[in-house]
Amino acid sequence: MTYRAEIIAVGTELLLGNVVNTNARDISESLSGLGINVYYHTVVGDNPERLCEAVEIAKGRADILITTGGLGPTYDDLTKETLASCFGLSLVYHEAIGAQIRAYLEERLPGIPVSENNFRQAYLPEGATILRNDCGTAPGCAFFAEDKHVLMLPGPPRECRAMFQNCAVPYLKALSDAEIVSQNIHIFGMGESTVEEKLRGLMQRLQNPTLAPYAKTGEVMLRLTAKAATESEAREMMAPVLQEVQDVLGNVIYGIDTGSLERVVLGLLLEQGKTIATAESCTAGLLSGRLTEVPGASGAFLGGVSAYANEVKTELLDVPAEQIQTEGAVSDAVARAMANGVQMRLGADLGIGITGIAGPDGGTAEKPVGTVFVALETADNTYVRSLRLGDDRNRVRVMAVHHALDMTRRYLTGLTVETIER
Amino acid sequence: MTYRAEIIAVGTELLLGNVVNTNARDISESLSGLGINVYYHTVVGDNPERLCEAVEIAKGRADILITTGGLGPTYDDLTKETLASCFGLSLVYHEAIGAQIRAYLEERLPGIPVSENNFRQAYLPEGATILRNDCGTAPGCAFFAEDKHVLMLPGPPRECRAMFQNCAVPYLKALSDAEIVSQNIHIFGMGESTVEEKLRGLMQRLQNPTLAPYAKTGEVMLRLTAKAATESEAREMMAPVLQEVQDVLGNVIYGIDTGSLERVVLGLLLEQGKTIATAESCTAGLLSGRLTEVPGASGAFLGGVSAYANEVKTELLDVPAEQIQTEGAVSDAVARAMANGVQMRLGADLGIGITGIAGPDGGTAEKPVGTVFVALETADNTYVRSLRLGDDRNRVRVMAVHHALDMTRRYLTGLTVETIER
Repeated sequence: MTYRAEIIAVGTELLLGNVVNTNARDISESLSGLGINVYYHTVVGDNPERLCEAVEIAKGRADILITTGGLGPTYDDLTKETLASCFGLSLVYHEAIGAQIRAYLEERLPGIPVSENNFRQAYLPEGATILRNDCGTAPGCAFFAEDKHVLMLPGPPRECRAMFQNCAVPYLKALSDAEIVSQNIHIFGMGESTVEEKLRGLMQRLQNPTLAPYAKTGEVMLRLTAKAATESEAREMMAPVLQEVQDVLGNVIYGIDTGSLERVVLGLLLEQGKTIATAESCTAGLLSGRLTEVPGASGAFLGGVSAYANEVKTELLDVPAEQIQTEGAVSDAVARAMANGVQMRLGADLGIGITGIAGPDGGTAEKPVGTVFVALETADNTYVRSLRLGDDRNRVRVMAVHHALDMTRRYLTGLTVETIER
Repeated sequence: MTYRAEIIAVGTELLLGNVVNTNARDISESLSGLGINVYYHTVVGDNPERLCEAVEIAKGRADILITTGGLGPTYDDLTKETLASCFGLSLVYHEAIGAQIRAYLEERLPGIPVSENNFRQAYLPEGATILRNDCGTAPGCAFFAEDKHVLMLPGPPRECRAMFQNCAVPYLKALSDAEIVSQNIHIFGMGESTVEEKLRGLMQRLQNPTLAPYAKTGEVMLRLTAKAATESEAREMMAPVLQEVQDVLGNVIYGIDTGSLERVVLGLLLEQGKTIATAESCTAGLLSGRLTEVPGASGAFLGGVSAYANEVKTELLDVPAEQIQTEGAVSDAVARAMANGVQMRLGADLGIGITGIAGPDGGTAEKPVGTVFVALETADNTYVRSLRLGDDRNRVRVMAVHHALDMTRRYLTGLTVETIER
C-alpha cells in the first residue's frame, strides 16, 4: 500500500510568523524519498483544543500523522498529553528517560539543580516506542492506534532533523517491505524550465523510478527515486534512467549526490593538489565565504581580495590604474587583470576575478545593472564569461559566484570553460 | 471584533519538500502586526478536491481565508476556479487584465506570441476586487461571501510579498476602524533568554501595546505593537513602553526600525564620512559580503582581504611572519596586526581584523574550536574582543561577523567597544 502522511506542526511561534516551518519541508522531502505521499501540512498553536481538532481532521485523511513541536519541559508543551488524549491513551513515566534527562542536564549545567518540570519529558503514551533525541532532552515517540501510525518529533530543527533521520526513517521503512533509493542530480548552467522541457517526456513516462526537479537560486536539482525489493535492484532500475538524463543534459550536470558546487570544486582542487585565490569586486567576499563554508577548505583556498574601491584593485591586485581608466572597472580586461593579479600575488595555481554592476545604481546604457565579467586565470590560459544577470542585486551577486565556481569546475574536469549552456 | 485568519498554501511543491512555506511566515508576521489572529496554516497540493475540503474546514474556523499559489497560467493552477466553486461563484473575464497581461509579456518576450493559456489569469470570481501584481502577470483578488473575507495571492514569494503589502494590507486595514502601529527594536549582545528574563514582567503586564520577541542567529528583535483610533494615539501609547525597554536593556539596542546591523554600521560610516576595510581569516569574506549587501556600500567600504593562508596575512596585510610563529595565527596580536595592516594598506579610517578557529578541526586545549579574536583599528586606538563562540562552524562565523559589526557600531556611537553585555 502507499501510505498518506500529514505533518502537524505545533507552535504559536509559527502562527506569529516568528519562525518558518522548515521541519515540514525537511520531513516532506524525506517522506517523498521513502515513497510516502504527503497530502497536507497543518500548523496549529500551543492550544490543546485546536490541536485536538487538527488531529481529528488528520485521522480522517491520513495513515501516518507526524507532529513536530511541543515536547519540551514548559507548561505550553502539550503535544504528548493532547495526542494521548485524542487516541484515548494514558501517559506512562519512563524511569530510564528521567535518568537520562538528569544526567544530560547535570553535565551541561553543573551545579544547577534540575527543576521538576524537566521530568515531564519522561512521560510517554502507553505502549509508545521511544525515539531518542541525540541533540536535546525531549525524546520523541511513535505509537500505532486506531489504524494510524503517530510519530511525535521535537520542534527545534536540529533536534527534529536528527530524530527524523536516525529514528523515524527506520520506523517508517519497516512499514514497507520495499527498499527506496534516491539519487540527486546537481545541475548548473541550464534553467529549470529548459531542464523540464528537455525531460518532460521522460518524467511523465516514468512510474518507478520517478524523476522530479527541485530549484534553488540559479541551480536545478533532479531527484531520481526507485522502489524495489532490494537496494541493488533499485539501483539497477535507476541506472538506465540516470544514463538517459546524462545523455540529454550533458555536462551541465556537475555532480551526482555530491552536494553544492563549492563542495565539488574544493573536492577537485584537493584531489588535483591545486590551490585557488579569489579577487572579487561586486561580490566582495561572497565567493571566498562560500568556498570556506566547506570544512577543510584551507587545503586549497589560499585567500582572496574584496576589491571594492578601484585603488584596492591597483594596490592589492596590481590592476593598472590606466586600464581601469580606459576600459572601466567593469570590463573584460579588468576581470582578467584581477584574476591574474591575485593568482600572482598569492602564488596560487588558479586565480578568479569578478567585476560587475550589482545595482540598484551604477548601470549605464552600454553596461546595465547585471553586467558581470568573471575571469579564471590558469597556468596557461585566461577564460572569461561576460554575463547579464538581471536587475536583482542579491541574485546578480549569487549568480556571479555560481558562474565562477562553474568555470573552475569545468576547467578542472577538462571541459570547455567559457561556454554557457542555455 | 478580532478577526481569525487561516492561511492556505496551495502547491504540490510544498508537500514534496521542494520549497519551504515562507509565504505563510511573511503573511503571519504582517497579520500579527495588524492585530489579526492566525490560528491555522494549511498546505494542500494542486488538487481541487483536497483544496475544496481544506476550504470547507477553514470556513468553519476562520473569518479571513488567505490562499497563496495556484494563480498562474498552467493547467495545474486551479485556486481561483476551486475557491469560486466552493463559494458558488462564477468566473468573469476582465478585459483590462487581459490587455495588461498581453502588454507585460510582449514587452518582456518581444517577438514571442502570447499563448492562450496566459489569459486564464484574467478570469476572477464575480464581484471580486482585483489585487494587482507588481512583479508578475497573475493578479490576485479578494471577495466577501458567506460572511468570510477571501484573499487569493500568488505563490512566488516576491510576488506574494509585494501584493500582500501593497494590496492586501490596505484591504485588511479597512476591515478595522483601529490603526495598528509597530516598532522593531533591534538588539545584539544579549541572549534571547536574558532579554526575556529582564522584560518578562513588562511583556506579561502589557495588553496594548504588546511586546513580543523574535530571535535570529545571535540577534534578538522585539516588536512593540499598539492599536488605537489614530496613528499618533498609537505612538503615544508606545512611547513610554519603548522608553522602559531602552532603560532596561541600554545600549545593546542597536536600532529602532533600522534593519540589520550592517545597515546601521554603513549608515553611521556614511553619516560620519568614514571609510572601512576588512581583514578576515576564519570568516573569509563573510563580513565584506554582508557589508556590501547594502546598496550604496561603496560610499564607505573600500575593500578587504580574505587571509586564509598565513602567507596571505604576511603578503597582503604585513602581519610579521615571526608574530604568527610565536603567537599563533589565532591570537590577539595577529588580529590587531591584521586590522592595522588592512587599514594602512587601503588607507581606511577603520580596519577590522578577524582570526579564529571555526572548526570542526584545528582546535587545541588552549584554543578550542570557537576561539575568535576580533580587532578594530581606529585613528587612535585598537580594540579587541576575545571570544568563545561554540562548536558549530556556521554559527562561529556568523557570530564573529556580528561582533565585528557591533564593535564598529559601538565605536562610531561613542560607546565602550570591548564590553560584551550578557
